[in-house]
Amino acid sequence: MQKKKIYIVKIGGNVINNDAALSRFIMEFSAIEGPKLLVHGGGRLLDVLAQKLAIPQQMVDGRRITDAETLQLASMVYAGSINKNIVAQLQATGTDAIGLSGADMNCIKAEKRVHATHDFGYVGDINAGGVNARMISVLLESGLVPVFCSITHDGKGQLLNTNADTLASAIATALAASYDVQLHYCFEKKGVLRQAEDDSSLITQISAEHYRTLLQEKTVTAGMIPKLDNAFAAIDKGVSTVVIGHANELLNAINKKEHAGTYLVA
Amino acid sequence: MQKKKIYIVKIGGNVINNDAALSRFIMEFSAIEGPKLLVHGGGRLLDVLAQKLAIPQQMVDGRRITDAETLQLASMVYAGSINKNIVAQLQATGTDAIGLSGADMNCIKAEKRVHATHDFGYVGDINAGGVNARMISVLLESGLVPVFCSITHDGKGQLLNTNADTLASAIATALAASYDVQLHYCFEKKGVLRQAEDDSSLITQISAEHYRTLLQEKTVTAGMIPKLDNAFAAIDKGVSTVVIGHANELLNAINKKEHAGTYLVA
Repeated sequence: MQKKKIYIVKIGGNVINNDAALSRFIMEFSAIEGPKLLVHGGGRLLDVLAQKLAIPQQMVDGRRITDAETLQLASMVYAGSINKNIVAQLQATGTDAIGLSGADMNCIKAEKRVHATHDFGYVGDINAGGVNARMISVLLESGLVPVFCSITHDGKGQLLNTNADTLASAIATALAASYDVQLHYCFEKKGVLRQAEDDSSLITQISAEHYRTLLQEKTVTAGMIPKLDNAFAAIDKGVSTVVIGHANELLNAINKKEHAGTYLVA
Repeated sequence: MQKKKIYIVKIGGNVINNDAALSRFIMEFSAIEGPKLLVHGGGRLLDVLAQKLAIPQQMVDGRRITDAETLQLASMVYAGSINKNIVAQLQATGTDAIGLSGADMNCIKAEKRVHATHDFGYVGDINAGGVNARMISVLLESGLVPVFCSITHDGKGQLLNTNADTLASAIATALAASYDVQLHYCFEKKGVLRQAEDDSSLITQISAEHYRTLLQEKTVTAGMIPKLDNAFAAIDKGVSTVVIGHANELLNAINKKEHAGTYLVA
């Protein structure tokens, strides 16, 4: 039997930080037919609040260290403000959205990261089998549209902060057994570019082998590597399609049944 | 056919502000058998944050005026921090909780309050028929435990701040058609007291007529009046049982099938 198609869309700060961009995104996302699911990142609000509240933010290799105060801010900003605003706006377009953290319905279990040299604090790495695909499917089959923020839990009462790209990849992978999963990573560029600042240098398709070459050539910049690693991990685990590109263009292309951005293939 | 019993429990700041009280509450609440639903208020965190962020809080007759910045704080604190922490702690006890605002699954629609003399800002009064009892029942029948914060939405993309006592009363009323609803308001006292500071003066039962007398005698103090009005509104609209009292005592009594607090009767 042919699997049902599902669109999983991940948006980051470039959409969340801009009211006009978010409104446009909400309209385009609502227009996608059939089952769909949204994962959102954080945006600037956490840093703005951390600064106002004098909660110092430490980064190691571009990754945030989540101390107890930062975790509280993250749960407020991601699961509260951003998540509920997106849900309310989706409801206004007739999309029956439900905002979720990993703790809700035990959807996503994670473990506090153990790292050889750094204590990342309350950062959660998603457990193998940590995504509750059964519960998420029940929501999807009821016609609901899950909207996930990147807060997870450890099952012992502790919330954890998880990378949103990784979370999108884990959900996509867990749903791949039952669905033909179309995973779309939206970010600020048109896709993977040969020259970082030149939109006309878009690479429309990358295979795993091609990716290794791009890494060797250092065509892929540091910020892109974790995103592409997450994307290829999803492909390896049965996700049908992974695309990286700009929110406007990717969603427009979905709704017009066209192609945009960079397609990743096995 | 006899209706299935459901316990709806509302907790306020006295439980939320105290880690030990919250842990104890979580254990007792988890132990309640059968369908149940939790509504939580705000606690002190909003005021603490508002002060640190220099967002002035205005009150009119003991009611908060919710300007745009305060609404953002409320959605962060109520729907983010408090809601998700409660859900994670319930999950740790094996209770499959799902945290919800009124926007999620369009559970609770409200309208921005129109008031003759004051602009209360983004405060929402729940619409007649605004509680989506069908969706809440679907969750309950799936064995999930809904945990509601007091953030609602207007269906047009706007979040609104709603009184948590009122929200609990509205949910209880909406579920009364299908369930034998046991609504428990937990607060800092043992129940309604004849003398405000004397726990031994507990009134164990109040009828609507008795309530009118207590109001005339000014036995019932200002802060209790909106709570009791909400409670009697629920009784009037078919809620089987409404009890007001201390969280420890009310939940202990539920689990031991005893009585505690003040019972309200028609």
